[in-house]
Amino acid sequence: MKLASALFTPRRIALIGASTDAARLTARAQVYLRRHGFTGELFPVNPRAETVLGEKAYPSLRDVPGDIDFAYVLVNTTNVETSIRDCADRSVPVACVLADGFAETGPEGVALQQRIVDTARAGGVRLLGPNSMGVINVPARIACSVNAVLEAEAMLPGRWSLVSHSGSMMGTIASRAAGRGRGFAKIVGTGNEADLTAGEIANLLVDDPDTDAILLFLETIRRPDLFEEAARRAHAAGKPIVAYKLGRSEAAAQLATTHTGAIAGSDAAADAFFKAIGIVRVDQIETLLELPPLLLGRTPPVAPRRAVRIVTTTGGGGAMVVDRLGMAGIASAHMLDTTLAGASKAFVANALNEARDADDADIAIAVIGSSAQFKPQEGVAGVIDAVGRNPICAFLVPQAEAALRLLNDAGIAAFRTPEACADAVRAYLEWQAPRQTPPAGDLSNAMGLLDEADDEPGARAVFAALGVADSAQRIDPDALPALAYPVALKAVSAEIAHKTEAGAVALNIPDAEALRRAAAGMKARLGARISGFIAQPMAKGSVGEAILGYRRDPLVGPVVALGAGGVLAEVYRDVVLRLAPVTEAEAMEMIAAVKGLAPARGYRGMTKGDLPALARAVATFSRLAAMPDVTEAEINPLIILPEGQGVVMADALLARR
Amino acid sequence: MKLASALFTPRRIALIGASTDAARLTARAQVYLRRHGFTGELFPVNPRAETVLGEKAYPSLRDVPGDIDFAYVLVNTTNVETSIRDCADRSVPVACVLADGFAETGPEGVALQQRIVDTARAGGVRLLGPNSMGVINVPARIACSVNAVLEAEAMLPGRWSLVSHSGSMMGTIASRAAGRGRGFAKIVGTGNEADLTAGEIANLLVDDPDTDAILLFLETIRRPDLFEEAARRAHAAGKPIVAYKLGRSEAAAQLATTHTGAIAGSDAAADAFFKAIGIVRVDQIETLLELPPLLLGRTPPVAPRRAVRIVTTTGGGGAMVVDRLGMAGIASAHMLDTTLAGASKAFVANALNEARDADDADIAIAVIGSSAQFKPQEGVAGVIDAVGRNPICAFLVPQAEAALRLLNDAGIAAFRTPEACADAVRAYLEWQAPRQTPPAGDLSNAMGLLDEADDEPGARAVFAALGVADSAQRIDPDALPALAYPVALKAVSAEIAHKTEAGAVALNIPDAEALRRAAAGMKARLGARISGFIAQPMAKGSVGEAILGYRRDPLVGPVVALGAGGVLAEVYRDVVLRLAPVTEAEAMEMIAAVKGLAPARGYRGMTKGDLPALARAVATFSRLAAMPDVTEAEINPLIILPEGQGVVMADALLARR
Repeated sequence: MKLASALFTPRRIALIGASTDAARLTARAQVYLRRHGFTGELFPVNPRAETVLGEKAYPSLRDVPGDIDFAYVLVNTTNVETSIRDCADRSVPVACVLADGFAETGPEGVALQQRIVDTARAGGVRLLGPNSMGVINVPARIACSVNAVLEAEAMLPGRWSLVSHSGSMMGTIASRAAGRGRGFAKIVGTGNEADLTAGEIANLLVDDPDTDAILLFLETIRRPDLFEEAARRAHAAGKPIVAYKLGRSEAAAQLATTHTGAIAGSDAAADAFFKAIGIVRVDQIETLLELPPLLLGRTPPVAPRRAVRIVTTTGGGGAMVVDRLGMAGIASAHMLDTTLAGASKAFVANALNEARDADDADIAIAVIGSSAQFKPQEGVAGVIDAVGRNPICAFLVPQAEAALRLLNDAGIAAFRTPEACADAVRAYLEWQAPRQTPPAGDLSNAMGLLDEADDEPGARAVFAALGVADSAQRIDPDALPALAYPVALKAVSAEIAHKTEAGAVALNIPDAEALRRAAAGMKARLGARISGFIAQPMAKGSVGEAILGYRRDPLVGPVVALGAGGVLAEVYRDVVLRLAPVTEAEAMEMIAAVKGLAPARGYRGMTKGDLPALARAVATFSRLAAMPDVTEAEINPLIILPEGQGVVMADALLARR
Repeated sequence: MKLASALFTPRRIALIGASTDAARLTARAQVYLRRHGFTGELFPVNPRAETVLGEKAYPSLRDVPGDIDFAYVLVNTTNVETSIRDCADRSVPVACVLADGFAETGPEGVALQQRIVDTARAGGVRLLGPNSMGVINVPARIACSVNAVLEAEAMLPGRWSLVSHSGSMMGTIASRAAGRGRGFAKIVGTGNEADLTAGEIANLLVDDPDTDAILLFLETIRRPDLFEEAARRAHAAGKPIVAYKLGRSEAAAQLATTHTGAIAGSDAAADAFFKAIGIVRVDQIETLLELPPLLLGRTPPVAPRRAVRIVTTTGGGGAMVVDRLGMAGIASAHMLDTTLAGASKAFVANALNEARDADDADIAIAVIGSSAQFKPQEGVAGVIDAVGRNPICAFLVPQAEAALRLLNDAGIAAFRTPEACADAVRAYLEWQAPRQTPPAGDLSNAMGLLDEADDEPGARAVFAALGVADSAQRIDPDALPALAYPVALKAVSAEIAHKTEAGAVALNIPDAEALRRAAAGMKARLGARISGFIAQPMAKGSVGEAILGYRRDPLVGPVVALGAGGVLAEVYRDVVLRLAPVTEAEAMEMIAAVKGLAPARGYRGMTKGDLPALARAVATFSRLAAMPDVTEAEINPLIILPEGQGVVMADALLARR
């Protein structure tokens, strides 16, 4: 049986460990399957009962007759392994495990989880969970889940599907959607993702004819490759993917920091990842539910103005949206307050038609006041009838469930709060098509230098081979080549971390004689800890410094980070991060997004830096992504010279696996 | 009749311009007053009708018999002035004006508005509006308003009152509150505030026995003195005031910028104002409704840990709150996930009791999953029964109106979204008692120097008289005093704005001879544009630079701003602003809050600056607040020397009215 069929439309479901006590969690799947109209066969497996909740029980999976499409393993953590072995013996295509107590609990749990994965794989069983609340196929009436949202008499069917790491959020998101008259197609809880990941499920949903949009509630990112595949295929299929991901806070970000990461936590990497592959990330939980109609049937906006037009029947309500959009850097090109003109359908529709066709804005927002509450049909009629080029959405200022439902039914994005409205507009404007990853090109030169790249000249050589110009050279103080004085002298050492403090750096050396003296001094002071010297002409006319970093993010893989140099940029955490490699055009976008590079961009008439050269350096440096052995690299500082004069690597570092 | 009685409990109301067409806006006040049970007398004034909606009409206000407590002026903008004169003639204590088209429309509107204010004042009439949607006293059943929220069959009475600049927001806030089972005592729309301001109304509500908490929806701040009076009296009376104020966005902020304000818009001033006077400002609109129970009966937290404890019945739901709190810099000291233990009332209550008594947190948050939706009584019982030292609040993860109402009825702050929950917790933790304004002390010295303060030495002299040490002195190059060389030389000029660029500054002058030469050179170059010279010993060992600014904010008055010096600090808009004057202790808080002063605070082992001296400079400089003629002042940069060595004014500027 194909994976999608087994997962989404099983007809013969085994419930291993089904309880005879209807009040228990482990009885819920059976109760809910039947309550919500499952018409297939259920096989409760329970060695201590003849029947379970009125259905014939089986002492073991072995005793279940015929093929089993899906097994929901409801037993305790300690008994899961045996149950999975039974599933393997019976060639069950998908086993879903409810129990927790696996990888999330520490090394023993990790080992136990690995064993059940191995057992499942060996037997051709795909595993959902552990710690999974199951799968709900709403239109097919297959509620194979223990989630309490199924206490509801009926689930609303719809054409969006939800994949959630958190089991409990499956229900609460469905519950909030139902409050707006919005139902779901499939709802899947992926739990620990020992085998099946949200990315792989999303891939299945791209092919699901009942799914138009895919919503993700994520606690982390596993198997970014499968996410990327799903996102690219979803884009091609015109199915938007919207994600809410935890882990944005400092506390969460710090957990995943590395050396370079000290100023660029991995949530920034997740952000870069979603953007690069065309998944739209929302900031507020309700936006997850409210955004999809704004994306459905549309493609990512091209060169958006980051501006909206607003037609409002309430000045205060409109002002809340303007204010919130402004905080996200989105201008309100025009706001028409129809308070006095009244909210007549024709007037509002005309105003909205004009707003939807405006050239100065990307999107039209209708802000609807009391009419949304007291005359919902009339209040939203103008919005529903509006036509024009730009997308439209609506913010309902009062408590107005009926109007929310009407707009929802009409396929118009409608928001309960100005905050979610602004978040959605921002998300829409930042929506991008999956990017074309630039080709890595020929890396054999750089690859060949890797074995010697543990010290600074070695790292410089690798970066130079990638295409970052290097003006430093190894020197022998006893046989000095011709140098462009004044120069900086640095001792080469894999042992000395803070060279300036250790006296291993000398600046502004005017001539060969002084250079020899300085080198001799270093040798005397530092002895065997140094393995040679490099000299570099002093950079003249610096207009700024950047820090250029590379690392393999533990979740999403290769990323390149650009920040302003210096201690203040570090304090302000002013770093822009993208998936590596990047093109020069993407690098220019990164440069534009680093606030602290404003001086180099010519802020207040300051001398402009050579930004094209900086972009070239960022792009070529980011080709490290194709060198899997490189775990981390940094050029800090990268000195920016005036226009036409390039950039200068002042220090370089590379770490290998 | 006293103002409060006339405004809140009028028994005889004139409706000037009441329409006979029940569908018109100008008929609504009469319709709503009667629908919601007003039992007093109504006097529709309409020269073209015998009766209006079944009540006897009067051709003019003159014809209305007896005293009139309150007149709602419903006529067109152009007729308002006449109506107000009529009110003055009849000694009506309060007239409320519905029409817009006054100060918000430009100079003519400003003039017209001023005329109606003058007319009202001359006649002893207090004016509400113009552009006011009126007054609703819910428990007294006096719905003297045209707001469409009164379309509802009945308004819910409650013990909070709302003052709103926006008329439409009166209704939408009431509507959202009603959705949670929460009603209001008084609801007042203040519109343009030509006379009665939100601050003065808030003052009345402090004395209102039916009001426990005061909610403000503000578009601006007028009469900060009345706000301050209201806030101080409310604090003394144990009535929290919570404000949502528009104007946080860049676009709005830029409207109110001045020279110093280029990096400190007036929304920061509003923020400082609210904080200083003990008004709690919320960021999200729903927080306005959801926060008060967390404040009621409590005093501002003393030295909060900025940490919470969380007890959750859903891991994903709890994680959303942790994440959002983390983004606001609030730690989750402990999170207990009771998902597996089940959400039994006793278990949750015990866990919450423990969380409420914890020493490592300021507040306990209950996060309630599906039980809030399907078993609301049981789901929230543990929260309602919990006892302990710390406050408690609840976030309901699914759609759960019944549970929201139960918690609301029990006086427990309950939130619909993790964003509002985190916003409320932040607002609570940042809640401060109205501050003691430090005494200005004797300013006669500084005052005496003001007339000479238009150039740099003059400004320095004023600041020095306030207590900021000054190491510069006016010099005559032909009769040099003894100086601590090397020195900086600066030409004094009121004409030259950018002295460095103009060649009016020379640094590191080693001796008297060089000083004379430099001064002669400047004289030759700049001629009559300079009026003298100052010399200042070069500061040695600077560990950082600050920018210290002062201005009279157009809304809230004197503010002092501290930022890090340099172009990057400007780019990052890293400025902390407080109402002036500040104490040295407050100045130390400001120093701690400026990110870019991290190096001077000893970031990464850097040399610490003389922060106590910096704080003294900030505090003494901020005494400018007591010199009303000073509109703006700046020390930029203020050089920070190492501990014990003080700070150095490197440039000074003062602007007078």
